[in-house]
Amino acid sequence: MTDTVKYVLDESRIPRAWYNLQADLPKPLPPVLHPGTKQPVGPDDLAPLFPMELILQEVTQEREVPIPEPVRDVYRQWRPSPLFRARRLEKVLQTPAHIYYKYEGVSPAGSHKPNTAVPQAFYNREAGVRKLVTETGAGQWGSSLAFAGALFGIDVQVFMVRVSYDQKPYRRALMETYGAKCVASPSNLTNAGRAILAQRPDHPGSLGIAISEAVEIAAQNDHIKYALGSVLNHVLLHQTIVGQEAIEQFAMTGDYPDVIVGCTGGGSNFAGLAFPFIGAQLRGGKKIDVIATEPTACPTLTRGRYAYDFGDTAHLTPLTKMHTLGSTFTPPGFHAGGLRYHGMAPLVSHLQELGLSRSLAYTQSRVFDAGVQFARAEGIVPAPEANHAVRGAIDEAIRCREEGVSRTILFNLSGHGHFDMQAYIDYFGGKLKDLAYDEAELASALAGLPSVAEPA
Amino acid sequence: MTDTVKYVLDESRIPRAWYNLQADLPKPLPPVLHPGTKQPVGPDDLAPLFPMELILQEVTQEREVPIPEPVRDVYRQWRPSPLFRARRLEKVLQTPAHIYYKYEGVSPAGSHKPNTAVPQAFYNREAGVRKLVTETGAGQWGSSLAFAGALFGIDVQVFMVRVSYDQKPYRRALMETYGAKCVASPSNLTNAGRAILAQRPDHPGSLGIAISEAVEIAAQNDHIKYALGSVLNHVLLHQTIVGQEAIEQFAMTGDYPDVIVGCTGGGSNFAGLAFPFIGAQLRGGKKIDVIATEPTACPTLTRGRYAYDFGDTAHLTPLTKMHTLGSTFTPPGFHAGGLRYHGMAPLVSHLQELGLSRSLAYTQSRVFDAGVQFARAEGIVPAPEANHAVRGAIDEAIRCREEGVSRTILFNLSGHGHFDMQAYIDYFGGKLKDLAYDEAELASALAGLPSVAEPA
Repeated sequence: MTDTVKYVLDESRIPRAWYNLQADLPKPLPPVLHPGTKQPVGPDDLAPLFPMELILQEVTQEREVPIPEPVRDVYRQWRPSPLFRARRLEKVLQTPAHIYYKYEGVSPAGSHKPNTAVPQAFYNREAGVRKLVTETGAGQWGSSLAFAGALFGIDVQVFMVRVSYDQKPYRRALMETYGAKCVASPSNLTNAGRAILAQRPDHPGSLGIAISEAVEIAAQNDHIKYALGSVLNHVLLHQTIVGQEAIEQFAMTGDYPDVIVGCTGGGSNFAGLAFPFIGAQLRGGKKIDVIATEPTACPTLTRGRYAYDFGDTAHLTPLTKMHTLGSTFTPPGFHAGGLRYHGMAPLVSHLQELGLSRSLAYTQSRVFDAGVQFARAEGIVPAPEANHAVRGAIDEAIRCREEGVSRTILFNLSGHGHFDMQAYIDYFGGKLKDLAYDEAELASALAGLPSVAEPA
Repeated sequence: MTDTVKYVLDESRIPRAWYNLQADLPKPLPPVLHPGTKQPVGPDDLAPLFPMELILQEVTQEREVPIPEPVRDVYRQWRPSPLFRARRLEKVLQTPAHIYYKYEGVSPAGSHKPNTAVPQAFYNREAGVRKLVTETGAGQWGSSLAFAGALFGIDVQVFMVRVSYDQKPYRRALMETYGAKCVASPSNLTNAGRAILAQRPDHPGSLGIAISEAVEIAAQNDHIKYALGSVLNHVLLHQTIVGQEAIEQFAMTGDYPDVIVGCTGGGSNFAGLAFPFIGAQLRGGKKIDVIATEPTACPTLTRGRYAYDFGDTAHLTPLTKMHTLGSTFTPPGFHAGGLRYHGMAPLVSHLQELGLSRSLAYTQSRVFDAGVQFARAEGIVPAPEANHAVRGAIDEAIRCREEGVSRTILFNLSGHGHFDMQAYIDYFGGKLKDLAYDEAELASALAGLPSVAEPA
């Protein structure tokens, strides 16, 4: 038996609650601070942006947060997602490793993002919200919120980072097919956007800028709320169904992961897969080598500072303690647009500080080498973001071959690359450059970090 | 419960045999004729193009053809494919109809085509073939054979119809990601291609021309075989796993189809879904209204003649009795490139002649209206070809509403449109024209049909 093996759960096994890692942490998260007072924010501070249910999920310490039935009903369309054993890839690599991947590209929008888009749209509809505004990098998040908005009758406006807006017209078309409005960011629709364009009319944009634009519109309009596709605790919480399903599926395999790999932009797909396993470890289970992989051109976890910073460029958000390259840092325009973020989810940063995970950075050409090798073996073309996880998994499998040991490697194939084929065209055409960030700009962005004393 | 419902089979329920409709036909298919002798062809006549196992499948009258285990192993990656009840679409349409769709877009290449690409690659590998050459319209077939070739270590060369080659660069990139070579047709690589280009250097191509090019190369090279993605009996045979699974899934629903809809280019996805149900009907089961839907711009079943004709433009293939617009007919360059074929599967044509199915034609704009409505309700963006089936199903559902009757409608959502988003961009941009074929060209093509007396 050398063929790919699929592990499927019945839909009755879709988790009934999201798993909250905060309940098992050996040390709590540092508090989120108000940018003016530098004191911990309360729920009311966030109320202009989010419905109260999501704010409460942001801060809850309960281990389990029940998933509403209407959300589970929508999940049923594509969940539980399959877990695959990549036997064909193992054979190509001639590795004794067992390689597994959880495949989230089976969702209608093609990635893990609907796992949180659906509950976010649901809670907003329950709160009477008629319009959501958000940012998107590669477009995975924007199209997922567009999908969820269509289901729950909510208008969706998406600020799409300019470089991705230009690179990925098909992803824009997908958002429009779902009925959303998509705008290139920086735009002339907001003060934040106009200020950036005044300085640099051809600015390629960044997630930090797009967040500023979306937050600005939500903050100024009572009937409009904001939605974020990663970083925040409640977003990572919603993604934990991925890892919970994987734990159940591993019970069918006879294996258990020694290594878990996920790519990190804001951290949500990585968290979704890894947190339930890390929680099991913290409650006395097996120790796992958990690896976050990221681009060398936006090395938040590997080169960033663990410090209080803003989530956006215009400084409209609260301050969170996280690994950051500085909120003014603009990464070069590489193809994994979903990983072009200056910060990192506070929970993911916290884990690395606690020694519960580690991080590796890869160049663009090496992640596409891995993605093409994976596609030819397994038949699925990964998204550029997911190629970072594929690279990490393949490197671990090669290490197993070199060391002559068999380890069980699990990675999150967070999305397919159907809307990102321009990147593959560039790769095959020899046009995929290994872009580097500007060291002086990074130094300047880090020097500009706000001065904050962490509350005792 | 108003949400989409999914019916999933365990992978142990992947059929163990393909279903052969020929065993149940009330009247046998007219024979395939040699273009020179006009006498029925024998297996040896086809041996330059296909391995003997596929030739035998082309002519077998056995009801069941066993599926080799290595093929089932590959099928397991995405099969059984889900059957969905489109409750959200029913609600939008305010119809009493029950709408179901079998979703074949879950395959790695995004359509039903791998169902036959995988066994074709398998039988060729078993026969020692190292290279396959084929044609593709929209690219669904070419990318599926590229996928299958990558799995079985077979080189794949694809002649892609020029208009699609230009419209769908992402689909080309997918083939290249799987390691195949993709060439625009008509090309300068063959006599057939050069002859067309000499007459019209900017020829948009057609499936008939691309078939000529691929057949020419296979016929002239002993070590190269040809593969066809539709039309032939063995291709339709391989697709019957779709309908067989659907029959099992319907047993879980409490419903049974009154109406079955599939789009038809060469006829394979339509056949795959409908044949097992028609077979059940012919063996005494319930009568079903079976509808083939096609473009008004290439109306093979609704405007074509039922006559002996060549499968390709350069007249390199045998003669088959089928609905045809004439082998020299070149359809206009509409977006459903997979439906731009002058002929029709002989089995599908035969069914219509026997009164076991009927056909409807739609304009491009009406099928995209339906596709966008479907996408907003169900979250899946269909391929332009599949939109013809969506249109047919929606029209039937609206008729149910108008007549105040509930019928159960099943259609084949044969593929997703991720690589076809330019068509949606054109649709939203108001640039999607309802192209018409040239009536004089059709008359001329029909007048040029070969004169053949059907053997007694």
